[in-house]
Amino acid sequence: MTLLTLGKQAKIASYSLSQASTRLKNELLMAMAEAIEAKTDLILQANQQDLTHAVDNGIDDTMLDRLRLTVERIQAMSDGIRQVASLADPIGEVDKMWKNEDNLTIGKRRVPLGVIGIIYESRPNVTTDAAALCFKTGNAVILRGGKEAFYSNQLLVTILQEVLTESPLSAHSIQFVSDTSRETARELMQLNQYLDVLIPRGGANLIKTVLATATVPVIETGTGNCHIYVDKAAQLEMARDIVVNAKCQRPSVCNSAETLLVHETIAAEFLPLVAAGLAPFNVELRGDEQTRRYLPEAILANEEDWGTEFLDFILAIKIVGSTDEAILHINTYNTKHSEAIISDNYFDTQKFLDHVDAAAVYVNASTRFTDGFAFGFGAEIGISTQKLHARGPMGLHELTSTKYIIYGDGQIRR
Amino acid sequence: MTLLTLGKQAKIASYSLSQASTRLKNELLMAMAEAIEAKTDLILQANQQDLTHAVDNGIDDTMLDRLRLTVERIQAMSDGIRQVASLADPIGEVDKMWKNEDNLTIGKRRVPLGVIGIIYESRPNVTTDAAALCFKTGNAVILRGGKEAFYSNQLLVTILQEVLTESPLSAHSIQFVSDTSRETARELMQLNQYLDVLIPRGGANLIKTVLATATVPVIETGTGNCHIYVDKAAQLEMARDIVVNAKCQRPSVCNSAETLLVHETIAAEFLPLVAAGLAPFNVELRGDEQTRRYLPEAILANEEDWGTEFLDFILAIKIVGSTDEAILHINTYNTKHSEAIISDNYFDTQKFLDHVDAAAVYVNASTRFTDGFAFGFGAEIGISTQKLHARGPMGLHELTSTKYIIYGDGQIRR
Repeated sequence: MTLLTLGKQAKIASYSLSQASTRLKNELLMAMAEAIEAKTDLILQANQQDLTHAVDNGIDDTMLDRLRLTVERIQAMSDGIRQVASLADPIGEVDKMWKNEDNLTIGKRRVPLGVIGIIYESRPNVTTDAAALCFKTGNAVILRGGKEAFYSNQLLVTILQEVLTESPLSAHSIQFVSDTSRETARELMQLNQYLDVLIPRGGANLIKTVLATATVPVIETGTGNCHIYVDKAAQLEMARDIVVNAKCQRPSVCNSAETLLVHETIAAEFLPLVAAGLAPFNVELRGDEQTRRYLPEAILANEEDWGTEFLDFILAIKIVGSTDEAILHINTYNTKHSEAIISDNYFDTQKFLDHVDAAAVYVNASTRFTDGFAFGFGAEIGISTQKLHARGPMGLHELTSTKYIIYGDGQIRR
Repeated sequence: MTLLTLGKQAKIASYSLSQASTRLKNELLMAMAEAIEAKTDLILQANQQDLTHAVDNGIDDTMLDRLRLTVERIQAMSDGIRQVASLADPIGEVDKMWKNEDNLTIGKRRVPLGVIGIIYESRPNVTTDAAALCFKTGNAVILRGGKEAFYSNQLLVTILQEVLTESPLSAHSIQFVSDTSRETARELMQLNQYLDVLIPRGGANLIKTVLATATVPVIETGTGNCHIYVDKAAQLEMARDIVVNAKCQRPSVCNSAETLLVHETIAAEFLPLVAAGLAPFNVELRGDEQTRRYLPEAILANEEDWGTEFLDFILAIKIVGSTDEAILHINTYNTKHSEAIISDNYFDTQKFLDHVDAAAVYVNASTRFTDGFAFGFGAEIGISTQKLHARGPMGLHELTSTKYIIYGDGQIRR
């Protein structure tokens, strides 16, 4: 099956899917959730095939854990699909409607994007998550997962398609690229004829490759070199708790913190306090010269450390002389994801909110909150770090476009 | 001056411009309008240089007319800038604000995109239009006009920069690429380090080149292969007036109609009626076999005609058996711009609105209304024919992005 065929099938499927009622889409999502549960044993078998291959190929434990499915994880996939079914459907919403000078009634109606491509790595739960979100928003989807999860992903898509086969909608609404070669990935990134948008989900290398290769419009997601700036007017224990949370609660995710900026007036008091908080997690500290005066155990940070998303128990630390210097450092090195200031000072917090260039800017809270669930969207397809179309956590609404519908009674242009 | 330098200057300028008050931006826009008026004679002289070169290079009359400035056209440019000043500023608007489960206050604030590149062709008025719209929305702009209008564009930008030089904002907020070579255009299209978005304004060839070359995010604009479908339940005289308006009022623009689809039951009556309406404009008719039974003067249309944006007094005509067939034809050949159905039938009009895939879908009105002014936006930077970020006429709002601002009191993620 060539990608051109998959693309054409997806485009055709997208026309009927775009017109499907919310009730039908929700009923089918519930049936998909049930089918996944009912086939738990088969899914575990397919996943075992992937795990065996992975072990043979000497894949590391972190990767292996991402790849592994369990009864609980499969249950979470089904629950996720049911959760998407329970959300309000944005398709058909008219954001606003007005009469223009010519007495035309103009409405801005939410419509699906059309055909969405998703390129992702080793977690098989992305398959059902992405499929459910695209389906709910009336978009056909072409899924291209990593080769490590091939058997798991293929079976999951087959189960979803079986539900569609017995429905009025096309099984091509959800498709899977079974060729996991790099050539096929490149072809997908350039399938302009059929793809309306491509969303990569994965590590920095995947995102970089997609941005360099794709000619299809891309929504850039995920890379997060996030900072916590502890101002001179910070409550130090609150600041410590936030830094420990942002660094250690789940260091492998994009909204965890990578660099700590500390105002010089509080450095002597705060640095030992935060170091003590981080110690139980064995966090490696990489500080500038000044930091090492207060924390001799810190390794000397180099230029590269300021620009690195460690995704690990490593924290870069820099002393700054002012909020302005903190803002300048952040705008120079960040990936426009999530940034936080800890301060009791009104003017410094306002300045930070105004001047820091990022998808999410926090005052007195952990950067870990940047996701669709924590924001209350009920779902998430990823976190956009670009400025076009969507910025920050993307829920159902961000998977839609608009169409102007215009009602006239014979108007012509003068 | 290299593009990297222009880009870096623009990025730096964009930081202060993004924080400028609406009052300051409006005062400077009013001063720019005044400066343009005051320098009318100089602008006419520079334009004369362009016109002389153009005549020497044997440029055709249509191009020459686009290039030509007059006192009235320069006045229109100033009026345009004042009009932009009078519009509401979207920057700083908070679209919505809510408390999440953790009691974080989350707001979605409108912010500028950052640095916008505009690549355009021979009309010098695009220079002041685009500069004013980007400036009002807090975006730095890099303008790259066609070589035909070089002297006019360069002087216009110099006049705008002189106003900025005497202000608290940077003159680099509005910059001009003075090297009009193709290599520089390509460099601009790949200036990912500094450009947040690139908007091409011009003909189909320019758009095609930009889409094929750019690695920067692009907003595709303008190409319009628009259709009018006259249903069997149409009021024929209204239909005639709309077809004549959509084809002839200004055939060179993207929202003019290129193909007429006519339901077979009314073809015998409607085709002679519409042909009589088009006759005073000497419209060349290109019909399918069936059309030529009723209009023997029509040339036989070929496959290519259905997909062509003529931008001229040429109309392709096809007879269809149903609204479904009309929709299928449109979705096969259109450029997703503007489409119209003329009908008194409730169900056919609803079906057309739902199923036609385009930025603007009309019932009983001319496609010529698709623009920011007719829609009531008060301004327009172009008409997007893509589905990401913006679709249809783009006003000030479409030149913005968003930033989540989050107020906490020590929240950490559990």
